[in-house]
Amino acid sequence: MLARDIYHNTVKQALMKAGWIITHDPLRLQWGTKDMYVDLGAEELVAAEQQGQKIAVEIKSFIGPSEIEDLRNALGQFVLYRTILQTTEPDRLLYLAVREATYFALFEEPVGQLLIQQQHLRLIVFSPDQEEVIQWIP
Amino acid sequence: MLARDIYHNTVKQALMKAGWIITHDPLRLQWGTKDMYVDLGAEELVAAEQQGQKIAVEIKSFIGPSEIEDLRNALGQFVLYRTILQTTEPDRLLYLAVREATYFALFEEPVGQLLIQQQHLRLIVFSPDQEEVIQWIP
Repeated sequence: MLARDIYHNTVKQALMKAGWIITHDPLRLQWGTKDMYVDLGAEELVAAEQQGQKIAVEIKSFIGPSEIEDLRNALGQFVLYRTILQTTEPDRLLYLAVREATYFALFEEPVGQLLIQQQHLRLIVFSPDQEEVIQWIP
Repeated sequence: MLARDIYHNTVKQALMKAGWIITHDPLRLQWGTKDMYVDLGAEELVAAEQQGQKIAVEIKSFIGPSEIEDLRNALGQFVLYRTILQTTEPDRLLYLAVREATYFALFEEPVGQLLIQQQHLRLIVFSPDQEEVIQWIP
């Protein structure tokens, strides 16, 4: 199994505080002979008459020496996992969870904005100190 | 500047043998405040009446301990660079150059086929021994 991101438990706590039930930790993806693991699968607590929303969450700390390299790697995981999920479980939406600091440094920059628009990146922006979700970019 | 892939010169030779002129080594991409470098830019030698075709080539050796991790990283670079190129230089097509062995191990597998179809990956498959392009997947 892959090493967990250092913010794994932070994001898990933040999602639970926001009313999500963690259903998979990690969420296993399989395609052909290859196994992959997305960090978290979660379902929203909802009223009985509503259809529960399902998400998969890939958590990225962006603490490497090059933020563009971190961005490329996060993007590669996101696109690979989303491509498989769209085929295996199309009602589960994939989100990339990033810290506020990462969001401001990269995703409010032109390169991040371009990716959000052109690649339809979905983001969960979290506060590592408060263990809370600050913003959803759906 | 980033470290060159170990097959950088192999792919450069293979493209030149196939009639391409290497115009950028590396090709610089810029978006906002961020600089990135694609391994090669090339233009096809063409008859005077034809419009020269332009490509950018990202070379990936796939020699890491995990082929899925190599695939994710290659995909991340490809999607990031293609997103920028489509905006800055839409007539230049981005290709990912991989060895024959990598092509058979990953891109003929279900996960590679899914990515080629869903993400429209363009591939140049090369022979490292013969320094030749074996196949174009456009």
